[in-house]
Amino acid sequence: VNYPTPPSFLRAVTLDASDPLAEYRGRFVLPDNVIYLDGNSLGALPVGVAERMQQVITQEWGVGLIRSWNSADWYPAPIRVGSQISKLIGADSDEVVVCDSTSVNLFKVLTSALRLAQSVSTQRNILIAERDNFPTNTYTASSVAELLGVELVLIDSIDVAALDSAIHAAGERLAVVSLTQVNYKSGARYDMAATTDLAHSVGALMVWDLCHSAGAFPVLLNDCDVDFAVGCSYKYLNGGPGAPAFLFVAKRHQKAMRNPLQGWHGHVAPFAFTSEFVPHVGIDRMLTGTASQLGLLALEAALHAFDDVDMNDVRSKSMSLIDLFIELVDEELAGYGFGVLTPRESDQRGSQVALTHEHGYPITQALIACGVIGDFRAPNVLRFGFAPLYLSHVDIHRAVMQLKEIMESGEWDDPKFHARGAVT
Amino acid sequence: VNYPTPPSFLRAVTLDASDPLAEYRGRFVLPDNVIYLDGNSLGALPVGVAERMQQVITQEWGVGLIRSWNSADWYPAPIRVGSQISKLIGADSDEVVVCDSTSVNLFKVLTSALRLAQSVSTQRNILIAERDNFPTNTYTASSVAELLGVELVLIDSIDVAALDSAIHAAGERLAVVSLTQVNYKSGARYDMAATTDLAHSVGALMVWDLCHSAGAFPVLLNDCDVDFAVGCSYKYLNGGPGAPAFLFVAKRHQKAMRNPLQGWHGHVAPFAFTSEFVPHVGIDRMLTGTASQLGLLALEAALHAFDDVDMNDVRSKSMSLIDLFIELVDEELAGYGFGVLTPRESDQRGSQVALTHEHGYPITQALIACGVIGDFRAPNVLRFGFAPLYLSHVDIHRAVMQLKEIMESGEWDDPKFHARGAVT
Repeated sequence: VNYPTPPSFLRAVTLDASDPLAEYRGRFVLPDNVIYLDGNSLGALPVGVAERMQQVITQEWGVGLIRSWNSADWYPAPIRVGSQISKLIGADSDEVVVCDSTSVNLFKVLTSALRLAQSVSTQRNILIAERDNFPTNTYTASSVAELLGVELVLIDSIDVAALDSAIHAAGERLAVVSLTQVNYKSGARYDMAATTDLAHSVGALMVWDLCHSAGAFPVLLNDCDVDFAVGCSYKYLNGGPGAPAFLFVAKRHQKAMRNPLQGWHGHVAPFAFTSEFVPHVGIDRMLTGTASQLGLLALEAALHAFDDVDMNDVRSKSMSLIDLFIELVDEELAGYGFGVLTPRESDQRGSQVALTHEHGYPITQALIACGVIGDFRAPNVLRFGFAPLYLSHVDIHRAVMQLKEIMESGEWDDPKFHARGAVT
Repeated sequence: VNYPTPPSFLRAVTLDASDPLAEYRGRFVLPDNVIYLDGNSLGALPVGVAERMQQVITQEWGVGLIRSWNSADWYPAPIRVGSQISKLIGADSDEVVVCDSTSVNLFKVLTSALRLAQSVSTQRNILIAERDNFPTNTYTASSVAELLGVELVLIDSIDVAALDSAIHAAGERLAVVSLTQVNYKSGARYDMAATTDLAHSVGALMVWDLCHSAGAFPVLLNDCDVDFAVGCSYKYLNGGPGAPAFLFVAKRHQKAMRNPLQGWHGHVAPFAFTSEFVPHVGIDRMLTGTASQLGLLALEAALHAFDDVDMNDVRSKSMSLIDLFIELVDEELAGYGFGVLTPRESDQRGSQVALTHEHGYPITQALIACGVIGDFRAPNVLRFGFAPLYLSHVDIHRAVMQLKEIMESGEWDDPKFHARGAVT
């Protein structure tokens, strides 16, 4: 980029100079010449993961073989890694397990939660979920509602008035409210405490999806009295492609949870091999089959990037990065047809920004070709994620100036940037 | 072991000399001084997996980042690896996907199969499964039966007369029969063709669990007209600890399958992000969430150990190894209190042998301490798996002679061998 240095660049440099998280960039392996604004889709590779996986494969699997389930502590890993994540989401260490995918865990939690609500009152037969949430959440809610014969009410995401109406209309018939805290596309965020209170005010149970929350800012599950949560570990938690997901059940509900995917790892005594299912007393009952051990141990190693990190610092830096980004978009990209979909009020958003543009797809591809990696969500959204542990204010400045150059030069309109890949 | 060379040892050497699979031992990394008879629980590490995983982590994740979903072909991996497995189980390449755990896949298949049977006739409301199968299968059958309101009939595993009676008693009310081809504990095996025909004779659908079959001997799903199957990839397929499982749906049923765990990866157009679930036309509809990519790519690399392997050779060698083992147990261990639980007729067993002994647990531990690794299943079973790609007849001879030494010396009774670990 070959512009005269604008004052905003110097401001970015100054902000970086006082960044308490600046040194944490060294905890990640990132390629040269890349500004990575897609950590909300796949987090960067933390230092130490590759080395740990060599040890797991060559020593623990290759030499330890079956013995490693005991000697290398593979068996307790779902609980152990769950305990690591619990610290980042305001839960107790015996309230979180790591297993399966977010979709599978949501199926388990929604089914268990609906059964729990119905065990208290059979008239509770409504599930509220979101129409424009990440699609898998809507598909899962629909499937669970059909299997259990409950009514599914869909509202628009982050429409607080619509949610309030739907909750009060359902009243004592409401069993469960299932929402994603930060919308995957807009980046808009619910107030977790107020929303959970609202669900509880009519006696319903609250399920939060934390896919775009965990590792992005402080989440306070127990302070907000949340009942259940699920989330993914390959975004801001940097667990690697398809890393196993997590699942939270508040201690007070654990004994009553009936996991529809009851499997041997959720049994109170898996190695007794009895034919009758007797669930584990605690959170382990939400486990199903054998843990995806390679993914789980990679995640465990990756989570060390959060050692000694204050999540309040993460949130402060995230807001600072995003404020600068939006300010620069306003200043530098005026007249190029961009809109800002994400709320401008920092308390109403997560750690990502969605711009809209009618040519969003080729513009995203042109940016990626220049090393500024964001992603595109149909029909017109350019998504940029801000992972505070490995991004600087100067990165953000460079990214926006690169976008400006692409727009000024018109290079985004090259036919090669219009070609669609399998994953866009 | 310090015995005079018995004639049986020379026979083992002779058998190894004419073994067409002898050279395949070089496709595995195994520790010195270990005879590994637990490949039916966790397969050995194939050559090349560690190197491939370094590439996946440092290059594809670390440098490629989100772009690798396209550029490194991560996205199609569940289908691509499914196609590799299809060749080993007598299926077509578009009939198998790799995803989730065996338990989760069994839930998906049983639910889909029962719904399919009921869509043809609502009076089909019986599911037959096994009481003493691997426990997770029984737990899953029980959960699915409850969710769908069908009747669960449990029979004893590999009791052909009981199965025949149960199928005919259910008759036109029978929806689905779900069996594991080789029992995890006894090693006894169903006749897949005859049993599938029996289920079909009353119009029921057949689900096979291939956990102890795939990679152990030729499986001929389509020749046997099987409807559905699931199986694990970390035993005889050597995919690594907790490697993702596989799932087979015969082509003729795919369009009618309704996956209860409907998720975005099963959608016909996942990246259109639409709120209505429209299933993929083919086997992809059985996918749910994001694939466990590290486990999946490790499995893909591991499966190259089967390149150019004739599964008929695998079966022949497996029978030869087991015949030698049982013969030596009869000859060398007479009077020490062992029983042979596994059928002695080779066509009635898989690729493992179960011995019984009242002190099975400490004997297993003492054997492991000497480098002969098998495992124990309560209350009294010593299990030995015979993976023909990396075991020799001499290994089998040494293993039995080691067991004899442990029994003769009484060292199995040392208190340290009685202590129980978390995983036994």
